[in-house]
Amino acid sequence: MSNPTAAMLVIGDEILSGRTRDANMHYLAGQLTEVGIDLKEVRVVSDDRDAIIDAVKALSNSFDSVFTSGGIGPTHDDITADCIAAAFDTPIDVRDDARALLQAHYDRTDTELNEARLRMARIPEGAVLIDNPVSTAPGFSIGNVHVMAGVPSVFQAMVASVLPTLSGGAPLISQSMRIFRGEGDIAGPLGALAESHPDLSIGSYPFQIDGKFGAQIVIRGTDAANVNVAMTQLKAAFPE
Amino acid sequence: MSNPTAAMLVIGDEILSGRTRDANMHYLAGQLTEVGIDLKEVRVVSDDRDAIIDAVKALSNSFDSVFTSGGIGPTHDDITADCIAAAFDTPIDVRDDARALLQAHYDRTDTELNEARLRMARIPEGAVLIDNPVSTAPGFSIGNVHVMAGVPSVFQAMVASVLPTLSGGAPLISQSMRIFRGEGDIAGPLGALAESHPDLSIGSYPFQIDGKFGAQIVIRGTDAANVNVAMTQLKAAFPE
Repeated sequence: MSNPTAAMLVIGDEILSGRTRDANMHYLAGQLTEVGIDLKEVRVVSDDRDAIIDAVKALSNSFDSVFTSGGIGPTHDDITADCIAAAFDTPIDVRDDARALLQAHYDRTDTELNEARLRMARIPEGAVLIDNPVSTAPGFSIGNVHVMAGVPSVFQAMVASVLPTLSGGAPLISQSMRIFRGEGDIAGPLGALAESHPDLSIGSYPFQIDGKFGAQIVIRGTDAANVNVAMTQLKAAFPE
Repeated sequence: MSNPTAAMLVIGDEILSGRTRDANMHYLAGQLTEVGIDLKEVRVVSDDRDAIIDAVKALSNSFDSVFTSGGIGPTHDDITADCIAAAFDTPIDVRDDARALLQAHYDRTDTELNEARLRMARIPEGAVLIDNPVSTAPGFSIGNVHVMAGVPSVFQAMVASVLPTLSGGAPLISQSMRIFRGEGDIAGPLGALAESHPDLSIGSYPFQIDGKFGAQIVIRGTDAANVNVAMTQLKAAFPE
């Protein structure tokens, strides 16, 4: 049985312009691997309505779940919620439950819940709110899409809220070994090993340290015994 | 006139599993911005034949140029070159010019050009080689797709080889300003500013430092004078 699949959609001009380095992809990838959900694709698109809607539709149709990050703040360039509503052909407006959360938050801090902040209570009809313990303004889940903030601390808190609601598969077990030989010397035996273990994913990640070439070989699978067998065979093929 | 557009395709299970943090996207984004090419989309896909072929076709049809990273080494999981050939419906085999480069390189280092290493000379018919001053094995350009290695030092050298062959647009000028107020306070005046400067891209990137909320406002455009005017107006709206 194969694991459930997921995709991620990162929304933000600031990443595509090189101004900001995305941190959420690496975080989500690690979290999903731990619970046995296979992240199969990530897309990064700009703050462009058509680009966001097209990507949400494509990913939502192709994978079991989709996680988005970015574009749900109060400013004019935060258009994610409206685009998700459009992708699901669902009405969107300020929703009472989200407004109440924000109202209570801003009351506590003596801040006005102005028109801009109220944008953060715009939630598509039928969506379920995602708790934001960091800064209150909620994310939301609609269909198989989970819409979260781009600020890493908030994104991580929202991932923690969402993951327990998803059923994962068998967590991926991985073992790795460094071989200080050129990939060209490793490739033959490694290919044979991969062929004899079709249930495992065997990857070779070349590196260069102080002028010495080598590769990190990673063996991944859901059956720990099989991973062990393959790793033993790898070590036998490349004794240190 | 709008700038030429580009997309990037990152190929690699190691990034989607969270084992490796991609570095090439951030690098390429910065380089393209400098020469006036707009990076519009990035996709990360796994070492899966159909996923790579579909993504190459989609991006190649939608954008002026496409840059790929990863999957062109000698091991069994390096399937990028064959997938690109399939996407362009072009034959692929070991090519003499690429083989000659590798042969000379391995002769110099007294290493056998074995079957695995020869895989790196598999180049689609009609493709133009991309110079690899770091480790010799070439990348290639076919149609509007530039196929490069995933190892960051090699990727960066290949980008340096390819960029001068592309015609860029007007480089993007950007100015930014930090405002230590909540985005909800900034959003109203900022939205009005964005509306009065449809030629500029005005982004708001919230942060939280030592419990203080604020946002970095970035104004981007190809006309420096317009960027200056908008920045002056922004400063007037939010005096320090």
